[in-house]
Amino acid sequence: MTSTDASRGIAATEPVWWGWGPAVAHDPLPETTRRLLAYLGITGQPSPPVALDEVRLPPARLPVSARAALVEVVGASHVRDDRETRVRHCRGRSTSDLLRLRAGDAAAAPDAVVLPAGHDEVLAVLRVATQERIVVVPYGGGTSVVGGLAPSGHGDRPVIALDLSRLDRLGRVDRESSTAELDAGLRGPRAEALLAEEGLTLGHLPQSWEYASIGGFAATRSSGQASAGYGRFDDLVVGLRVATPAGSWELGRAPASAAGPDLRELVLGSEGAFGVITQVVARVRPLPARRLYEGWTVPDFATGTRLLRALAVRDLRPTVCRLSDETETLAGLAGPPRQHDTTRRGSLEGADRTGTDLDSGPAAALDGAAAGGGCRLVVGYEGAGPAVERRAAQVTVVLRAGGARRLEPAAGTDWELGRFRAPYLRDALLDLGIFAETLETAGFWSALPALYADVRQALTDSLGAAGLSPVVMCHISHLYENGASLYFTVVCAQGGDPIRSWHAAKTAAGDAIIAAGGTITHHHAVGTDHRPWLGAEIGGLGVEVLRAVKRTLDPAGILNPGVLVE
Amino acid sequence: MTSTDASRGIAATEPVWWGWGPAVAHDPLPETTRRLLAYLGITGQPSPPVALDEVRLPPARLPVSARAALVEVVGASHVRDDRETRVRHCRGRSTSDLLRLRAGDAAAAPDAVVLPAGHDEVLAVLRVATQERIVVVPYGGGTSVVGGLAPSGHGDRPVIALDLSRLDRLGRVDRESSTAELDAGLRGPRAEALLAEEGLTLGHLPQSWEYASIGGFAATRSSGQASAGYGRFDDLVVGLRVATPAGSWELGRAPASAAGPDLRELVLGSEGAFGVITQVVARVRPLPARRLYEGWTVPDFATGTRLLRALAVRDLRPTVCRLSDETETLAGLAGPPRQHDTTRRGSLEGADRTGTDLDSGPAAALDGAAAGGGCRLVVGYEGAGPAVERRAAQVTVVLRAGGARRLEPAAGTDWELGRFRAPYLRDALLDLGIFAETLETAGFWSALPALYADVRQALTDSLGAAGLSPVVMCHISHLYENGASLYFTVVCAQGGDPIRSWHAAKTAAGDAIIAAGGTITHHHAVGTDHRPWLGAEIGGLGVEVLRAVKRTLDPAGILNPGVLVE
Repeated sequence: MTSTDASRGIAATEPVWWGWGPAVAHDPLPETTRRLLAYLGITGQPSPPVALDEVRLPPARLPVSARAALVEVVGASHVRDDRETRVRHCRGRSTSDLLRLRAGDAAAAPDAVVLPAGHDEVLAVLRVATQERIVVVPYGGGTSVVGGLAPSGHGDRPVIALDLSRLDRLGRVDRESSTAELDAGLRGPRAEALLAEEGLTLGHLPQSWEYASIGGFAATRSSGQASAGYGRFDDLVVGLRVATPAGSWELGRAPASAAGPDLRELVLGSEGAFGVITQVVARVRPLPARRLYEGWTVPDFATGTRLLRALAVRDLRPTVCRLSDETETLAGLAGPPRQHDTTRRGSLEGADRTGTDLDSGPAAALDGAAAGGGCRLVVGYEGAGPAVERRAAQVTVVLRAGGARRLEPAAGTDWELGRFRAPYLRDALLDLGIFAETLETAGFWSALPALYADVRQALTDSLGAAGLSPVVMCHISHLYENGASLYFTVVCAQGGDPIRSWHAAKTAAGDAIIAAGGTITHHHAVGTDHRPWLGAEIGGLGVEVLRAVKRTLDPAGILNPGVLVE
Repeated sequence: MTSTDASRGIAATEPVWWGWGPAVAHDPLPETTRRLLAYLGITGQPSPPVALDEVRLPPARLPVSARAALVEVVGASHVRDDRETRVRHCRGRSTSDLLRLRAGDAAAAPDAVVLPAGHDEVLAVLRVATQERIVVVPYGGGTSVVGGLAPSGHGDRPVIALDLSRLDRLGRVDRESSTAELDAGLRGPRAEALLAEEGLTLGHLPQSWEYASIGGFAATRSSGQASAGYGRFDDLVVGLRVATPAGSWELGRAPASAAGPDLRELVLGSEGAFGVITQVVARVRPLPARRLYEGWTVPDFATGTRLLRALAVRDLRPTVCRLSDETETLAGLAGPPRQHDTTRRGSLEGADRTGTDLDSGPAAALDGAAAGGGCRLVVGYEGAGPAVERRAAQVTVVLRAGGARRLEPAAGTDWELGRFRAPYLRDALLDLGIFAETLETAGFWSALPALYADVRQALTDSLGAAGLSPVVMCHISHLYENGASLYFTVVCAQGGDPIRSWHAAKTAAGDAIIAAGGTITHHHAVGTDHRPWLGAEIGGLGVEVLRAVKRTLDPAGILNPGVLVE
């Protein structure tokens, strides 16, 4: 793949336009995964992406006068409408987005990409866009997996992507208050690098961290892998600076207030539909002196879930906590299989592919092999040395009492090494014509078992009916006193129309989530993909309230139309 | 006072209509307080409240047709317009509210009080009110100190108080998820008693706890004395049921979600202007097996503040934490002076009233006596026995290292015994013609020293200019990782027009809060009193957003007009 891309004139270290990260990181598919797919009988046809010059891109529709007005605001070099820039800003990074891009469909590409230098330029761009009736898609890292970068219902209005990558400074660091001003366009690694120079960290590390931006974290209510320790991103925000078509807006005068509704919570999760977040004032913590990751095995997913609840109600949540169900444990997505975990590997390699299990399809085969093999639990601790040791000791008591068994130290570090790998793996699978996608929810503890069973069943039934033999895996990775998240990964054959098959499966899963009392999304946001269930989630009145807020802040409806609300 | 009230036909154990709680609890003023007032030269004329039948009450204006429609919804016995009921629902419990009531001014009394039995009856009452153009004031415990029960700008429309006291059940308790459904009309003690039968607690104990309601806690973003341990009330809410003029609204499907803005945070703090909260789903915790309260002394307020920050950033906040400044420490409001704290008592009793200090007025005299006497710090721990011991040991290390000294055990229990006493004390002071009132704010740690100094100065200057010789005391009682609250108590002579003098002082303090970067209210809410600063707090756009939300949920503007937004 690397040489192919080099021949297309894209540097090997630059993220590809059709996937996640640089091509060199996608290839090759790990041998363990190849063996697993072969075992499951999940096969596909090699499906390389088309060449960039083969991508079907509609002509740019930005009127000359509008372009001139935008150039006046940000400068000529910051209004771009070349092929590659437009394609790179087309849609987000859901599997359906990638399938369309790989097939050369860039019908949803913006007419131009505008790169403002700061808050005031964003305000000025919004003024031009309002005057010229141009649709504006705020663009941070471009990693949305819910159609958050795909406006709809805007008719023939031209669309610009408002790329915030030039808003990339660390502002005032208030060491006494443990807060820092972070520009919205800062991506995860650069934000952490700038804070590290001050001995500080956000501790916000979602799987998208390498490419996603501070503004995107806030606009989508992102939740990092260490959310139990550092908090969700919405917990980390104490202040916000927002550029709206109706003007500039700053929020957050104190760590807590009773001055009416908390309007920060209205901007968090607003997905660029109310305004453009240009700066976040975030809580920062000292860089942890010690990091400790451990792998454990628990008898089964239900027991593991009860153990996580026991930790949460005792206020003993580790910084990182990830419990894989039996299937995910066996599939090894929780970490590359290693010699130390011989039970698990043995159970897969020793399984009889010709047995009864396989007659029910690959998922049942994997489930059969997984049953009794236990579930992988990764726990991580970060902080001052003594605090880490103390917390680890307390957690260990609870886990041992619940029947958990600690694995060799490598089981924990394996997870740490692979924590950002899944999206790269997906690209390698798509290259082989194999489908992979994720979805997530959360619920109160009492609702969780049925939520898990029903969503799993809905995905298995829907994709199974399409003859795609899915493997459905799940993990819990975000713990709260009152409940937890569920994160599902689906791998299956692509079949004739994978976008349509997935849409049906996703619809079935969404209906199951609502019926089982969960939230339609725990940390991926609404975008356009989850909008059908928003009314069930927040009520018809809730949707009306969001519309009223949008009308107030964006009266001309230029911001991300169709995202979050119609 | 007790016999007087008995002669007015009010039972001695029932809260008085002109103050806080039953009369028997107001009298007599503690001897230590009398001595302190004498020492400071703060004097007044005995000012008993007028008799109930002397109260000036406007004629009830509820049209016959409207009354009949309301009777049809809630029954004849639940539409009340007798004198006592109307007076009891007149305004809230700010000192200005009480001064007006005590003087016989009930001009703001509702035309009738309506007591619905549940959510559906609340919805039906709102429908009648919308049709009949009746203003509705949602009424929980009636303890607002910010004018939250005093609608304004409603012209000649009749007003009903919607008393939620019949919504008083504990609903479903979900032990696995640690949540409980609590009706909005439940007052603090009854809510705790019902939960205690299940071995559970909310742990939410603001000073108003004896009379304030669950719905009021939510609508005003109340914060309890144990907020560091259990969380502010807005932290405790995971779900809400709201009756609005536009219909019924339920929120909260999961412990955390990325399904757009968190609309629970729009209802929390909405002060009855958007809808009537009829039920809250709250986090509940096991009743603590152990409670430990300790008194400490720290060298001065600045040192104490730094110590609290040190605890907060180390994630070592005690369940309860209250640091009095030098003046409050000396005045003994942090707890009745006792033999064990001889240094402090000595410093007051030994002070020379004829010295230089007194030439600058009572406040300066008290400040002079207080200087060098140290500050009182109360810390409390609640939870399982070992957790309490562990946390106390960790906190002790930090406090000792910072120069704090532990007092005798009684210093902690004194605080616990007196934790709800201040509002009763105020009534006793008002009886003597002495003014007492409070106000509060919060800010980031770096802003706190200037916020403290500037608000104190503004209050002292304003009341001093009116010749009222104020004593201004302050404490920190709510800690966050990024900052803390400041709670000011002012005691002074009443002068000729105490309501006007206080309004001027409060205005000066509000301006100082905004200039120093604090929030206009940490836990008292906006009401009508704080509305002048709401634009400075949340921006002009924030106010516009609140108006848009109100128009959506309450299109006829019947709910609490003038409260929160105009």
